[in-house]
Amino acid sequence: MYYIGVDLGGMSIKAGVVDDRGNIIVEDRVKTQRERHYSLIIKDMADLCNKVVSDANLKISDIEAIGVGSPGIPNKETGVLLSSNNLGFYNVPLKAELQKYFDIPIYIDNDTNTAALAESVSGASKGYEHSVFITLGTGIGGGIIINNQIYSGFNYAGSELGHMCIIQDGISCSCGRKGCFERYASASALIEQTKEAARLNPNSKINIVAEGDFDNIDAKTAFIAQRMNDEVADKVVEKYIEYLADGIMNIVNILFPEIIVIGGGLGNEGENLLVPLREAAKKREYTSDIERTKIVSAVLGNKAGIVGAAMLGMKE
Amino acid sequence: MYYIGVDLGGMSIKAGVVDDRGNIIVEDRVKTQRERHYSLIIKDMADLCNKVVSDANLKISDIEAIGVGSPGIPNKETGVLLSSNNLGFYNVPLKAELQKYFDIPIYIDNDTNTAALAESVSGASKGYEHSVFITLGTGIGGGIIINNQIYSGFNYAGSELGHMCIIQDGISCSCGRKGCFERYASASALIEQTKEAARLNPNSKINIVAEGDFDNIDAKTAFIAQRMNDEVADKVVEKYIEYLADGIMNIVNILFPEIIVIGGGLGNEGENLLVPLREAAKKREYTSDIERTKIVSAVLGNKAGIVGAAMLGMKE
Repeated sequence: MYYIGVDLGGMSIKAGVVDDRGNIIVEDRVKTQRERHYSLIIKDMADLCNKVVSDANLKISDIEAIGVGSPGIPNKETGVLLSSNNLGFYNVPLKAELQKYFDIPIYIDNDTNTAALAESVSGASKGYEHSVFITLGTGIGGGIIINNQIYSGFNYAGSELGHMCIIQDGISCSCGRKGCFERYASASALIEQTKEAARLNPNSKINIVAEGDFDNIDAKTAFIAQRMNDEVADKVVEKYIEYLADGIMNIVNILFPEIIVIGGGLGNEGENLLVPLREAAKKREYTSDIERTKIVSAVLGNKAGIVGAAMLGMKE
Repeated sequence: MYYIGVDLGGMSIKAGVVDDRGNIIVEDRVKTQRERHYSLIIKDMADLCNKVVSDANLKISDIEAIGVGSPGIPNKETGVLLSSNNLGFYNVPLKAELQKYFDIPIYIDNDTNTAALAESVSGASKGYEHSVFITLGTGIGGGIIINNQIYSGFNYAGSELGHMCIIQDGISCSCGRKGCFERYASASALIEQTKEAARLNPNSKINIVAEGDFDNIDAKTAFIAQRMNDEVADKVVEKYIEYLADGIMNIVNILFPEIIVIGGGLGNEGENLLVPLREAAKKREYTSDIERTKIVSAVLGNKAGIVGAAMLGMKE
């Protein structure tokens, strides 16, 4: 049993042939060139699907289904991409257009949801019925898996974990609210917090790590300086962990998943991030009598896009 | 098809015979007398079940199942009530003990979950697949319905909507965290906010409504004084609505249920509460392109306990 997974991004379209254990057999990519009309982009998706099938020495008749992971809000039932600022797509009939090229089932879902599904089928949350996937990047994205299925709310717009208010009247967010989780606990927020600390503390080793240039500060900088025993960096990381723990424990108290998987660039910090995060989470538990939610790093990285999209077909 | 629903509370045990449309045919109650050994309390539950069946001119063989809604954290699989501070029950084999008296299936769930189920089967959220039930009382309780089923997380301890931090480092909560939703938006919180405003503003009509005695201030007081055009009360209600909207929109952005049902004493304020709440919620929407979550009042009131418990049997 083989499936095609397509990871549609603003920069590139990736596609792969995936087996029913979530292994990528063959993969390839082309540039999205998103300024073009959607019909041209979707034709490129179709060509890429055919290419990876051919590269895998298979025929399209060997493929059970095609799954597409897309940014924005796709309607899973109709296959229409309702809106994606990233692609500049609004009400694009993605499934119908792709279906012109193929006579097999096509499924579409949001790309963070497909990444969550990938981790759940063959990654860090494999074997757990209820899991939550959180990406710490420019913002905070979320994917909720309930009973081994993607849950995204009645109009496909749920699991916006980044837009949970943790500080009333806090920093303004692009969503229109104030004090959203992602304004404090995304990778971007950590970079801002690190820069601010470097600015206020010229002698901090943050400035050494950054070679004196604030533009060199990224989400790893504070962790690196912390390992150099820099007190300022230590405080930055500690405060950042508090923000992250507040949001994560809100999710735990609401959904109580068996496991939370941390992805995105910061997920790569692994135990440097997770050990203090688990401690901060433990302090926020409302009862110690019950088995706790595990907190782990994502393991599939960039592969999650193709694998999760392919799994959409397997799950149906 | 008939079911028995048992609403086990700290003060009273209520039981009723319920038909498969969620109508209560007969109901009755006895005092819990919770200081007794659990085996005596559960024997009273059994006697009450037999009484309501007899009062309905039915035999126990006409009953499909017995459902029990209990405070605390019951393990649905084993039927053990893991902990209930309210009843003083810890690791009580509730189902096994009750099963001694009956040869039909017995189910157990948390009482806020059963109330959520009741509203979903025959109340305010009837006809909606995904709903969230929120009680505004001493604390804030929650029940999550996904795909017409109660969702309570992997260890039955989820949907603790009241223990979501909305104000980092805010007021200390009994759960050990700070800034929890229920410390700002429960009925008790509103009473405290109303008392504080009355204290600071002796000329406020809140003091007239309360007849000069702070002990008379309840969750309705600020709403009554607001309708008397009292500016202080207006501000109390406005701020309270802001807290409530912050928590509710967090739930919306995470779960995006079709409908949120507000229960508990404050749910009775109806449109007085809901009209400004919907406005405050609308201001916090992250996109206006999609259909929104409805916010309504619960309709079953005290009946929800018996009906929802009975529905546990119907849902299995």
